[in-house]
This record gives sequence, structure tokens and C-alpha cells, in this order.
Amino acid sequence: MRMRLKLKTVFVMYFMVSLLGLIYALMQLGQRCDCRDHGMSKDQQISHLRTELQKLQEHIKTSELKKTDVPKIYVITPTYARLVQKAELTRLTLTFLHVPQLHWIVVEDAPQPTPLVTDFLAASGLTYTHLHKLTPKDRKLQEGDPSWLKPRGAEQRNEGLRWLREMGAAAEGKEAAALEEAVVYFADDDNTYSLQLFEEMRYTYRVSVWPVGLVGGMKFERPVVEDGKVVRFHTGWRPNRPFAMDMAGFAVSLRSVMTNPEARFDGDAQMGFLESSFLQNLVTMDDLEPKADLCTKVLVWHTRTEKPKMKREDALQKQGLGSDPDVEV
Amino acid sequence: MRMRLKLKTVFVMYFMVSLLGLIYALMQLGQRCDCRDHGMSKDQQISHLRTELQKLQEHIKTSELKKTDVPKIYVITPTYARLVQKAELTRLTLTFLHVPQLHWIVVEDAPQPTPLVTDFLAASGLTYTHLHKLTPKDRKLQEGDPSWLKPRGAEQRNEGLRWLREMGAAAEGKEAAALEEAVVYFADDDNTYSLQLFEEMRYTYRVSVWPVGLVGGMKFERPVVEDGKVVRFHTGWRPNRPFAMDMAGFAVSLRSVMTNPEARFDGDAQMGFLESSFLQNLVTMDDLEPKADLCTKVLVWHTRTEKPKMKREDALQKQGLGSDPDVEV
Repeated sequence: MRMRLKLKTVFVMYFMVSLLGLIYALMQLGQRCDCRDHGMSKDQQISHLRTELQKLQEHIKTSELKKTDVPKIYVITPTYARLVQKAELTRLTLTFLHVPQLHWIVVEDAPQPTPLVTDFLAASGLTYTHLHKLTPKDRKLQEGDPSWLKPRGAEQRNEGLRWLREMGAAAEGKEAAALEEAVVYFADDDNTYSLQLFEEMRYTYRVSVWPVGLVGGMKFERPVVEDGKVVRFHTGWRPNRPFAMDMAGFAVSLRSVMTNPEARFDGDAQMGFLESSFLQNLVTMDDLEPKADLCTKVLVWHTRTEKPKMKREDALQKQGLGSDPDVEV
Repeated sequence: MRMRLKLKTVFVMYFMVSLLGLIYALMQLGQRCDCRDHGMSKDQQISHLRTELQKLQEHIKTSELKKTDVPKIYVITPTYARLVQKAELTRLTLTFLHVPQLHWIVVEDAPQPTPLVTDFLAASGLTYTHLHKLTPKDRKLQEGDPSWLKPRGAEQRNEGLRWLREMGAAAEGKEAAALEEAVVYFADDDNTYSLQLFEEMRYTYRVSVWPVGLVGGMKFERPVVEDGKVVRFHTGWRPNRPFAMDMAGFAVSLRSVMTNPEARFDGDAQMGFLESSFLQNLVTMDDLEPKADLCTKVLVWHTRTEKPKMKREDALQKQGLGSDPDVEV
């Protein structure tokens, strides 16, 4: 009986202990695998984290890597050394940085690339190509010449076109296919560009056109559109020029540039005929694609920056007190 | 003995069964919690997802919601209606959009807010406050007056300061604490600003200073720094003015503006003394905080935009052929 009792006691105790152990193990099982971490099971946590991750990835795709599948815009900008050059390039860069898929082709009117432009472009954060082409002396404006006497930037724009045609001819496969959609725009470094302008020009079949503000002695010049077609030009001077538009008022498809290899700017063109010298090789007026709400919105302005006076600088320099030439302006 | 054996058997069997149960439970514990889903336990998955999520959040923080914990910059810009106004505001906006934590205070020189500026600001994407303050007629430049005859924008800058002081006085708690760090800059709408400029001014204790390019008939004007202190001003004209600096060449802490409620721009100040009229209420030359590599870098340019000629517009308008007045330029 003592033995029995003892065994019974051992049995009961073992039963209790092992039961407790089992309960504990089962609780652990429930807790660790269903373990509520902030009230969520692991499966719920994983699905929650996955959703969060997806949301963020979506967000980044739409906000940052945004619109990489839109046609490229090649912007050709002739530039030349002068006091306001860095300031102008700065403003232009801060505009272009907002534009998706923009490739900037900067063409210096210089015998070789200048350190200022080279360093500037390297730090700009833009995708760019840096070219240079010196305007022959006989075609260049001389000090004191009125700015309209000779067209400026013709050689540089042609150099940009040459680079584009070479690049286009060398492209293959997917790259070549993407170029089929690309657009070319001639953006002088002193104008003012809205962001909307670039979205207007982005889909250009041959030549797209729009108004330009503050140009040619006018509030704006623009193609006049009737029934969706350009029928004439609103301009204050010789409206019967083939394309009475400013350089800032049109973009051309890279396809047109490639298929019309003879199209270029004639540096000897009569005043006001530089744009026409290029465009008449590409299209007729009837082909023009009016943008900016059928040419009723001004999205680009032909602003001009004053040449800064250096009267005091010159006076101080004569006394050896001029501004430190090592400081880039 | 039979009883004993029976009990022993029951005990042993129970022992075996409960042991098996325990072992099974422990195995389950191991398996279910270590269960490999694509070769990873849930814990590993969760930690992996958490890491990914953190990386993306970090990425977004640095790229987009970037630097929301830096001091705010309040930029006060006086502006007035003219042909190039919208173009200038466009360039300025496209610069400011790159600057984190910038609050634009636009003060029109007008009896009431104009539709052009109102609509422009609403579409700008910037954080802004739109104010207006008409300059009294006797303080205003008249047509044909040289631009230096009367200081421009004094009333508007003071209106911006008034708004800031009111806003600052009304702020409470966390908001008030954040304002302790804020900076105030006076940015005219025709200058050119680099992005680096805003990072230079961002931490300003009282008044920070730097060079300004293309101003006052000079390549640049700047505070001259010796042993980390501003000792004089490099300028082409009256270098002994209390603060011989252009408006674009300094920023002040909001704290200084708040603790010196009498500091304002004197619209009647002698030519070239407008900046001094404000600054001498805030600091001495010794207090100035030189920025931009001890004032050796030009990060802002006092560019001026040419007033567009409207010769042809006027001629056409006389014939009733002027540009459509409904088109905003």
C-alpha cells in the first residue's frame, strides 16, 4: 500500500508536471508562431510589410524614376563667353533639371571647350553633351554692331545637328527605336522657359509650333491657327517670311532631322530668315503642328539680359584694386 | 504486485506517450516557427522586409521629402506688374522648387493682389504667402527716372517683415521652436540664384553675408574677410557705407527680426543706403557671418532683364492688329 501510494503520488505528480509542461509547450507554440507583435500575427506582419513595400516602390516609380518612357528631348544651346554666361547657364540648368528625359547639347562658340562651361556642366546634374564650334570671324558680330546684323549661333546649332545625326546613325536596336520618337529644340541661353513648354513639344511628328512672348518688338508672336491648321503668322515684321517665327517657337522631330540631312541653319541668311532657312527643308506651313492650346498660350519668353556695366570695375582695375580675377563669376 | 505492475505499466506508457507528445510539440515549435517559406523563416522574412522598407524610406527621405528637418528659409520678393514679370517669376519658381523648406513671401506693389500673380502662385507648387502693398506715389520712381533715384521695394520688404513678425508672435510650441532656426532672405525677382546659395544661408545666427556678382558696375562686390571676420567691403562705390552690400548679399535670422522689431527698410534712405538702414538695427560689421568659403565664391548674380521694346506692337495696335490682349504673357 505504501508502495502503491508512493507510485500513485509519483504518477500523479509526474502527470501534473508533464501536463503543465505540455500546456506550457502548447502555449509557447501558440505564442511564438501566432505571436502578437503589436497585435499582429507573423503572417499578418509579413503581408503588411509587403504591402507597405509595394506602396513605397510604386511611389518611387511614379515620383522619381517618373516618365522614363517618354520621348527624349534634345536641347541644343549655343553659348559664348560673356559676363552673364554662368548666371544664364545656372537659370537654364535649374529649369532643365525639372524636365524628364532631357539631353542638353551645349555648343560653345569657342576654339576649344572653356573651363567655365566644362566645370559647370560636370556639376550640373544634367545629361549633356559638350561641343564647341568657333564662328568664323567674318560671320561674327563685331563690338558695336547691332545684334540683328548677323544671325548668332547658326554654326553652333549646325554643330549640334551634326552630332545628333552621327549619334542617330550609330544607334542600334532598342536605342534606335527610342530615337524614332525623340525631339530637337533650340534653346538660347537667355530665354525663359516654362515646364509646360517641354510637355507640349514632347510628341512632335515633324515640326511643332507655339507662341513666343516678348519677341520682335511685340507682346508675343505666334502662328495663327484656323481649323487646327497654321494659316499665317502674327508678327510685327514681314509676316510673309516662309516661317515667320523665332527660334524658341518650334521643335522638330529627330526623325525629320535624320531624314533631311541637308537641313541646316544658313549663317548668311538675311536678317529674320535664319529659322526659315532651316525649316523650309523640313516642312511646309500646312505640316506645322500647333501646340499650346492651338497657339493661344505663351509658355516661353524671349527675355534678354542686360549687359552689365563695368565702369567702376575698370576704374578700380586701373588703380590695381579690381575684383580678384581668380574668383569665377 | 499485479496492481504494482499495472500501475508501473500505466506509468511507463503514460510516460512514453507524454514524452512523445512533448517531443512532437517541441518539434512543431521548431518547425512551425522556423518554417521555411522560400528558404527563410518568418522571422527572417520579417526582418528582411523591415530592412527593405527602411532602405526605401531612407531613400525617399533623402531624395524627396528630403531635409524637412532643416531650418526654414523665408524668401521675401517684392514684385510689380511689367511685361517681363511672369517670365521672371517663372525662372524664380523653377529655382525655388529645388530648395527644401523654402517659404516664398511675394509682395506685390499694387493696391490689391493681381490675377496674374494670384494664378501664378496657385499653380507654382511652392509654399507661399501672397501680400501686396502699394508704394506711395511720392516714393515711386516715375517714368524716365534713373533706376537709382529712389530705392525700389522698400515698402514691400517691410510688409514682408510685418507678416513674419505677426506670424512669429502667433506661433506656439513646436512651431515656435522651429522658427527659432528660420532664416529670412530678400530675393528680387530678376536676380539669378544658385542652389548652393540657399544652403550657405540656411544656418544663420544673426546676419550671414557673401559676394554678389555683376553688381554696382563691378564683376562682383563682397565682404572682405580677415581671420574669419568681415573687416571691410570690396565695392566700387563708397566702401565706407555701414554695410556696403547689395540686397542679394545677406540673410538674417528670423530670431533677429523678431527681437529687433524696429528694424525696417527706410524708403527715404539715400541711394545705396537702403541695406544699411535695415542692417544697422541688427548687427555691427564684427557680427557678420561670412559664408561661401569666406566670401570667395559668387553664388548669386545681380542680373537685370532688358525692358522689351514694344515698337511694333504699338504700331500694329494703332491699326487694330495688336496682339490679343486676352493672351497672358
